[in-house]
Amino acid sequence: MAKEVLLAHGSGGKLTHDLIRNVFLKHFRSPLLAMRDDAAVWRHSSSTEVQWALTTDSYVIQPIFFPGGDIGKLAICGTVNDLAMVGAQPLYLTASFILEEGLPLSDLEQIVASMARTADEAGVEIITGDTKVVDRGNADQIFINTAGVGIVPKGVHISGANAQPGDVVILSGPIGLHGLAVMSQREGLRFSFPLHSDCAPLNSLVAAMLQADMRIHCLRDPTRGGLATTLNELAAQSQVGIEIEEARVPIPESVHAACELLGIDAFYAANEGKLVAIVAPEAESAILAAMRRHPHGRETVTIGHVTAAHPGKVILHTTLGAHRILDMLAGAQLPRIC
Amino acid sequence: MAKEVLLAHGSGGKLTHDLIRNVFLKHFRSPLLAMRDDAAVWRHSSSTEVQWALTTDSYVIQPIFFPGGDIGKLAICGTVNDLAMVGAQPLYLTASFILEEGLPLSDLEQIVASMARTADEAGVEIITGDTKVVDRGNADQIFINTAGVGIVPKGVHISGANAQPGDVVILSGPIGLHGLAVMSQREGLRFSFPLHSDCAPLNSLVAAMLQADMRIHCLRDPTRGGLATTLNELAAQSQVGIEIEEARVPIPESVHAACELLGIDAFYAANEGKLVAIVAPEAESAILAAMRRHPHGRETVTIGHVTAAHPGKVILHTTLGAHRILDMLAGAQLPRIC
Repeated sequence: MAKEVLLAHGSGGKLTHDLIRNVFLKHFRSPLLAMRDDAAVWRHSSSTEVQWALTTDSYVIQPIFFPGGDIGKLAICGTVNDLAMVGAQPLYLTASFILEEGLPLSDLEQIVASMARTADEAGVEIITGDTKVVDRGNADQIFINTAGVGIVPKGVHISGANAQPGDVVILSGPIGLHGLAVMSQREGLRFSFPLHSDCAPLNSLVAAMLQADMRIHCLRDPTRGGLATTLNELAAQSQVGIEIEEARVPIPESVHAACELLGIDAFYAANEGKLVAIVAPEAESAILAAMRRHPHGRETVTIGHVTAAHPGKVILHTTLGAHRILDMLAGAQLPRIC
Repeated sequence: MAKEVLLAHGSGGKLTHDLIRNVFLKHFRSPLLAMRDDAAVWRHSSSTEVQWALTTDSYVIQPIFFPGGDIGKLAICGTVNDLAMVGAQPLYLTASFILEEGLPLSDLEQIVASMARTADEAGVEIITGDTKVVDRGNADQIFINTAGVGIVPKGVHISGANAQPGDVVILSGPIGLHGLAVMSQREGLRFSFPLHSDCAPLNSLVAAMLQADMRIHCLRDPTRGGLATTLNELAAQSQVGIEIEEARVPIPESVHAACELLGIDAFYAANEGKLVAIVAPEAESAILAAMRRHPHGRETVTIGHVTAAHPGKVILHTTLGAHRILDMLAGAQLPRIC
């Protein structure tokens, strides 16, 4: 094991999971934390019918403004989506800022205005906050933390641990847009085609899905570590195998081109406006239809299924007719992508 | 107004308040946020008898280990205390880490273990979290954010806006210990006397106070900006005057000495294990007695009272028999103290 923190500890991949297990779960002995879903869900004795959800994320993305968004929009979408991924309707957010001395106040105001707009779009209210300033050179412009509280509707039980053999794996649209848009901006690459982050709040999409059919077993947004890492997390949590048809996974031409230039695999590139849903087979058609009617789900596709074979592993059936294990992200392919 | 972020914007003093008003409150139009208490309090339709509280803080203290604590202990105490300051019993915390590449993993584990111990002491559970890593030179070792959720017991209505003329101002013990311990450590000063941070979770002290008498109008922990800034916040929020007897405010000999060496006024130095309570005069004796029985309140004293005169202003009656306006912190006396 490494003796110091490496960039890959923040990649969302294997080393992140090692750190969580070997340091955080070792000391923070909470059954809710050990669930390792995107948000923790609990009931309170005052009303045992209600399930509350709580989540948090810090955002350190660089650059702070990028095609399709900025760190403020991302900080709202990311936390709203983590609540949505346990089926919760987000209610309230916190916003905490770590600012580097010298950050132009006009940049801060632009970011705050973007947060306010995105919160309005998602129907959440920012009700408490905090501001810290660190001396020049000891942070990088601005870091934002948001935590979020939501309510899980009655009868909803969504967890990464709930996938069952026979379930269907659904993806809400093309992958790689956020990661490649940010990396291209950071590297100063210009393409002849547009490449915009897909950053978007997904809570209304999830609400539409639940209205169509409650038999949603797992939801997760493939952010850090990309689609491949998310599928591996779900396979491990549920102790099932997952089989994916490569030809069914939509990858935009622009993402293909940027991946080639930057030496990145789109399956490991971050998304900030997509979700993976694992649903009961009888629910597939109703949920697909509901998703395709929603602005953030127009390009929804079924990409694979869950199997009792090879528990904990994700198998990719390639376009060439071969199959291979699709592993979790191992290194730090895309640092500071969120 | 400044064009860029200054260290003083993070001091907790005048510039912090300007930033909150001119940027955050301008865009985040939430009545709960506009209350500007240490935590936001709401009710949910599922059980209108229950009041929930939510708060957040990011911690950027330097050095990360200091006499009497570390950034992990501070990150638990600070957020637990913000919940306690609206009378809430803390239930659940989030923990989000921004790590600088190269941080020794042994330091991280020591901090996480300290968080776990402090959370146990306070009776709270860390149920969800996040880890980000930034490249070397773009953060300073470790920044931690904690957000907290709590329940406000029935019949409790504590807010910085509730002080009334005739109320009594109570302080739970000697001031300046956290700020001076951290500054002395940072400057490499050694004294012949011990100087330890007072960093402690105050939720059980507040519970004991409420059990003694519910007529507590305001609670606030004098952290950034110190006692002087906290009293000014309460005077402004409640639109009342506050009169303080300087001779009654306990300042330890060690704090006096360190203040003199460092050119710091103890009234503006941060505390992390003290609270100011403004209570109805009839409740004073019961609350004083309850506080003095508690380990974190043994040295509790009444330091002044609330008046209808000079609303928004704090008057200090000095030991020399004169009186002067005790203003909010204006500059950045103590950067990165929490």
